[in-house]
Amino acid sequence: MSRELLLNRMLERESCLCVGLDPDRDKIPVHLSTTAEHPVLAFNRAIIQATAPYCIAYKLNTAFYEVMGADGWKILEQTLACIPDTHLKIIDAKRGDVGHTAEQYARTFFETLQADAVTVSPLLGKDSLEPFFAYSNKWTIVLGLTSNPGSRDFLQLPYQHSTWYAHIMQQVADWASPDQLMFVVGATWPEQFKTLRTQFPEHFFLVPGVGAQGGELQVLLKHGFNSRAGILVNVSRAILYASSGEDFAAAAARQALTYARQMGDYLKAIA
Amino acid sequence: MSRELLLNRMLERESCLCVGLDPDRDKIPVHLSTTAEHPVLAFNRAIIQATAPYCIAYKLNTAFYEVMGADGWKILEQTLACIPDTHLKIIDAKRGDVGHTAEQYARTFFETLQADAVTVSPLLGKDSLEPFFAYSNKWTIVLGLTSNPGSRDFLQLPYQHSTWYAHIMQQVADWASPDQLMFVVGATWPEQFKTLRTQFPEHFFLVPGVGAQGGELQVLLKHGFNSRAGILVNVSRAILYASSGEDFAAAAARQALTYARQMGDYLKAIA
Repeated sequence: MSRELLLNRMLERESCLCVGLDPDRDKIPVHLSTTAEHPVLAFNRAIIQATAPYCIAYKLNTAFYEVMGADGWKILEQTLACIPDTHLKIIDAKRGDVGHTAEQYARTFFETLQADAVTVSPLLGKDSLEPFFAYSNKWTIVLGLTSNPGSRDFLQLPYQHSTWYAHIMQQVADWASPDQLMFVVGATWPEQFKTLRTQFPEHFFLVPGVGAQGGELQVLLKHGFNSRAGILVNVSRAILYASSGEDFAAAAARQALTYARQMGDYLKAIA
Repeated sequence: MSRELLLNRMLERESCLCVGLDPDRDKIPVHLSTTAEHPVLAFNRAIIQATAPYCIAYKLNTAFYEVMGADGWKILEQTLACIPDTHLKIIDAKRGDVGHTAEQYARTFFETLQADAVTVSPLLGKDSLEPFFAYSNKWTIVLGLTSNPGSRDFLQLPYQHSTWYAHIMQQVADWASPDQLMFVVGATWPEQFKTLRTQFPEHFFLVPGVGAQGGELQVLLKHGFNSRAGILVNVSRAILYASSGEDFAAAAARQALTYARQMGDYLKAIA
């Protein structure tokens, strides 16, 4: 999905919300355990059907599928098949490996799974990212500043009047165009978020950390928007587990709509 | 497998070789395509049976399995089941994610797959590693200095009279004991390798980059050994693809034996 098409869909749908499909078996409504199909697949399908009008993308973190073994990968594939082509399919994999191995990962996510986008770690440098960039019609989403407390341990350390994360992002931005490169920038560091928007005015940011992790949506929207939207706001747990009852899908839809409504004004302003 | 048991097995077998099971469909002997089971599984089983007397561990890189989708994860599980309990089962996953997601990955590799060890990326800091360290009877193998050219892009940059990779390793070494923590240190940087052995005299190093990537085994053995062995030398392609004919397993065994023979003298010296 090209940058123009992504923007157009955001304007049409008045939303830059990404729903994170990270299903935790222990939190899935118990009544789903009696369905004919796997409870996680039933859960994901219902969440997708209920939230699709209010979001622009779905993000599937591989950890929550791999923990179920080979069955989990089957459910990952089946869940991707449930997502309409009108939505960006993001695999949150955070892979990072040496060149010839990175080639296998790029094939995995862009060919085997036919995702539109994948998150990757930049730690191993250029040859670990190039196999992803070789798919110029796909999105490579590189970790910039992550939302977790541990981002202070290494990524936020100072480096040459800057920080490790900003230095890494600057290097990576030289290696691929903003038409195929996004950055992960956590919602939990509002000051750094504002600075990064200034330093990287063109790139899309995929922003986790809203909801359960405490990042404030209004701050993101105010400081994160650029003339072509420029942000995808991911929410996982606050939508998935809005209700643990039989109304979980309707509750998820209401929650997604609540987020989308806050985005609508910003999108109208750049339409 | 405890550090003492690992050392004892190395002394018995006179080898610190780890065979990397990274099967590339395009390089697997063509005659295996006619077997009843999946060619990759048939290949892996034959390689394991042929090389087990000469190695101490097997390392499976998830990329080469995930590229086959859910079937690949099934083959990953089946291959693990082929590895005898006398050998360390390492999953080369290089995962790195925020705390609550890292918990799922730790469960995946240590419980679902029942591996003995997993490689992880330290980029996201302490909360991304702690869920792995919580399994104190398993090995967490943290990326230190990787073998690829791209390690120059970020890991080898200077930081406070040191380098990023050495700083990261020093921090991580404070978070877990050498009884459960190893580092990945590439064979392709012999000078840095020597320095790291001095800086980290206690830790096991998992050393990729010998063979196809050009690292020299003799340099590693001379400078990498400590009083409890302290290195696991991984070789993948040079063993797996020693022959593309029907004799591939025998050729792999000969190649593994050639590596092991070079290790024997060093192991006898510390026995």
